[in-house]
Amino acid sequence: MDEEIKICYNKLNLMDKMEKIISLCKRRGFIFPGSEIYGGLANSWDYGPLGVELKKNIKDEWWEVFVRGRGDMIGIDAALIMNSKVWEASGHVKEFTDPLVECKKCHQRFRADQVGEKCSNCEGEFTKAKQFNLLFKTFLGPIEDASAEVYLRGELAQAMFVDFPNVLQTTRKKLPFGIASQGRVFRNEITPGNFIFRTREFDLMEFEYFVREDEWEKYFEYWLEEMKKWLSHIGVKKDYLHFHEIPDGERAHYSKRTIDIEYDYPFGQKELYGLAYRADFDLKNHQEKSGHNLTYTDLENGENFLPHVIEPTFGVDRTVLVALLEAYHEEEVGGETRVILKFPYWTAPYKVAILPLSKKPELSKVAEEICEDLRQNFVCDYDDTQSIGKRYRRQDEIGTPYCVTVDFDTLNDQAVTVRDRDTMRQDRIEIKKLKEYLNGKLQ
Amino acid sequence: MDEEIKICYNKLNLMDKMEKIISLCKRRGFIFPGSEIYGGLANSWDYGPLGVELKKNIKDEWWEVFVRGRGDMIGIDAALIMNSKVWEASGHVKEFTDPLVECKKCHQRFRADQVGEKCSNCEGEFTKAKQFNLLFKTFLGPIEDASAEVYLRGELAQAMFVDFPNVLQTTRKKLPFGIASQGRVFRNEITPGNFIFRTREFDLMEFEYFVREDEWEKYFEYWLEEMKKWLSHIGVKKDYLHFHEIPDGERAHYSKRTIDIEYDYPFGQKELYGLAYRADFDLKNHQEKSGHNLTYTDLENGENFLPHVIEPTFGVDRTVLVALLEAYHEEEVGGETRVILKFPYWTAPYKVAILPLSKKPELSKVAEEICEDLRQNFVCDYDDTQSIGKRYRRQDEIGTPYCVTVDFDTLNDQAVTVRDRDTMRQDRIEIKKLKEYLNGKLQ
Repeated sequence: MDEEIKICYNKLNLMDKMEKIISLCKRRGFIFPGSEIYGGLANSWDYGPLGVELKKNIKDEWWEVFVRGRGDMIGIDAALIMNSKVWEASGHVKEFTDPLVECKKCHQRFRADQVGEKCSNCEGEFTKAKQFNLLFKTFLGPIEDASAEVYLRGELAQAMFVDFPNVLQTTRKKLPFGIASQGRVFRNEITPGNFIFRTREFDLMEFEYFVREDEWEKYFEYWLEEMKKWLSHIGVKKDYLHFHEIPDGERAHYSKRTIDIEYDYPFGQKELYGLAYRADFDLKNHQEKSGHNLTYTDLENGENFLPHVIEPTFGVDRTVLVALLEAYHEEEVGGETRVILKFPYWTAPYKVAILPLSKKPELSKVAEEICEDLRQNFVCDYDDTQSIGKRYRRQDEIGTPYCVTVDFDTLNDQAVTVRDRDTMRQDRIEIKKLKEYLNGKLQ
Repeated sequence: MDEEIKICYNKLNLMDKMEKIISLCKRRGFIFPGSEIYGGLANSWDYGPLGVELKKNIKDEWWEVFVRGRGDMIGIDAALIMNSKVWEASGHVKEFTDPLVECKKCHQRFRADQVGEKCSNCEGEFTKAKQFNLLFKTFLGPIEDASAEVYLRGELAQAMFVDFPNVLQTTRKKLPFGIASQGRVFRNEITPGNFIFRTREFDLMEFEYFVREDEWEKYFEYWLEEMKKWLSHIGVKKDYLHFHEIPDGERAHYSKRTIDIEYDYPFGQKELYGLAYRADFDLKNHQEKSGHNLTYTDLENGENFLPHVIEPTFGVDRTVLVALLEAYHEEEVGGETRVILKFPYWTAPYKVAILPLSKKPELSKVAEEICEDLRQNFVCDYDDTQSIGKRYRRQDEIGTPYCVTVDFDTLNDQAVTVRDRDTMRQDRIEIKKLKEYLNGKLQ
């Protein structure tokens, strides 16, 4: 009984954390509801001034680590709308579906695998489940008929297979090598929810890593380790991660081994990233359906074959969510609660905030000069509203690693106070040494 | 007569240049036809390994210059699918149209304002023009009826107006300030064409700069100058630019002043960027239609009003196209034609190429070590195929500023040959001083 109460208490705490984060995101401008002045739109979210920086930091760092930082990886950015034959060949037009049920009484719709016997809304009975396709459909050109029907991409992967011969021909890469991509994908989810965890449009980062068949196990393990390193790099604690090996019979039709990397979200243990061995399923399939030769030729021995594929998939919005969850901390300071986003420095939207103690012109002048100078090197915020204490709280809440305070002493000693987000320690630093000081801290 | 021949000759030369660039883009992996193995899809294009880097350099630099580098600008990244009421309020559902005619004989469709009296295909007669809406339509959720109808965004601007109150509340910015955004937009063009000049999906970079009404002229001029600076930064020559003041009666319904920045493309003088004064049209409109208060309050005097808006719009793909056109050069060297993309260094996909003279392991070892080291600072290519001459030609063609050649002397003198793309000058540089040398050149 005690144990049950403890579990309940934990759950309440966790849901509370989720609500606190959603509230902080809206209040501080990380993420707010899409189309809000028109009543919103079914769990759609817009990234605000801070969220867009956090997301860009994550996407750019991923590109540096996995594409620019490696000799065996190149990127592409394909058109979002592709020839429909691509999605027919890949099986998406037929098989990219979720089972849908409708309540016979209140007519609400649910995903069949997420509900019980009776409708949670009105206790009505459900219809039989039918398959609902998740691809968004639209029409290219002026006539809305079947011949003009096209789909918004439901994943990034297909373009990397379809473009494989062009990439191979232009880069002359040797196995093993990967093709990487980032961008928006669309899935017509029946029940989106849990903030930015499940939405109908979201960003993915993904690569297809092409290997010889007999090396797939080696590279599967290799990429699993690299994904773990990346997770640690964004500040995710190991305890919250679960590596769920998908058993035979439950994997997607194209995969011979899949690991779902799951995370302990406040709303439960659910998918964060995925790692799949897709064998040569996709290249073989597109080769058959398109009639184009998609093989790779080993120039040393003339061997000609379809490479096999390891596919690590990283959800951008889920990365943002996890980055926020991991960063969120509350501390008691002098009887008050201090909320801090303890981001690793590289993800923080602003690296430095410049805070003149008052709006007096003599302080503003110095503070603005410092800000202009620091902005050459760091993404900076400038804030001269409210009391200095409130401004520190604000910068803590948005995760800014360093605050630079310009006070009246500055006019005499040509120095400023630099406050550390995590330790709250304050150092007096000469203005002319400030950039060097911050460089040392932030790099 | 001579003059006419000269003009014809010029035109042929220009079209020739366009074809050379399209061919180079495909051959070297900048840009290739989308869905090519399935026969392509109506002028859709995929960015390949080099194109994706060129495009990312442009988008990232724009963000640095116009958002992170300024205290008066913040960014957002809105959901691509917004509540349909947004597009009804903005007038897009009714007015975002092109006039469409169909040939009565061959049934091909054209934009009425781009054709003559008779069909260019079969000399047939056209139907009367009817208005065709450019917004792509799709359905949210499982039922395809009018209530589920949504649109893919046809521009970035609306989200920046709809999110205006959330941005204002969370950042407490004071006028003048701007909201910036980058991302994919969709327009169901009747006749896309001219490579990446007009496609049905493309990336925009844009901001809405909010000012007091009595300051709009000042800031219109200010942003016109800033756009000119940006164009010069990406290497566009002034001679090819035209600032076309749109006269009364021809501007979009919301605009009180518009300048189209046009460029001399090989296929004619056409739009590159736009600068529009939208007055308070959008905020007023969304305030009326949504019933939400979108006013700005001046905290110093309590004044309450709708800000006016200056809107600079930058097409990403057109920027890429212009960057390629400006960079393309042919030179005669020793009786052969040398093709060079003379990119400004910051746009070049690769900054440095490391070229071991042969594939001998003792050279590869040193070359790979150098490459790994340089990759910490620069985006690098590594190429050990073909003759060194051919490899230089390839790096010239893709615009790599510096080639580092590792030869057999390297093993003795611990130095490499560094070749300059533009001058072809070769310097012998000690390996331990290489990074410093390249840093000096590239920054």
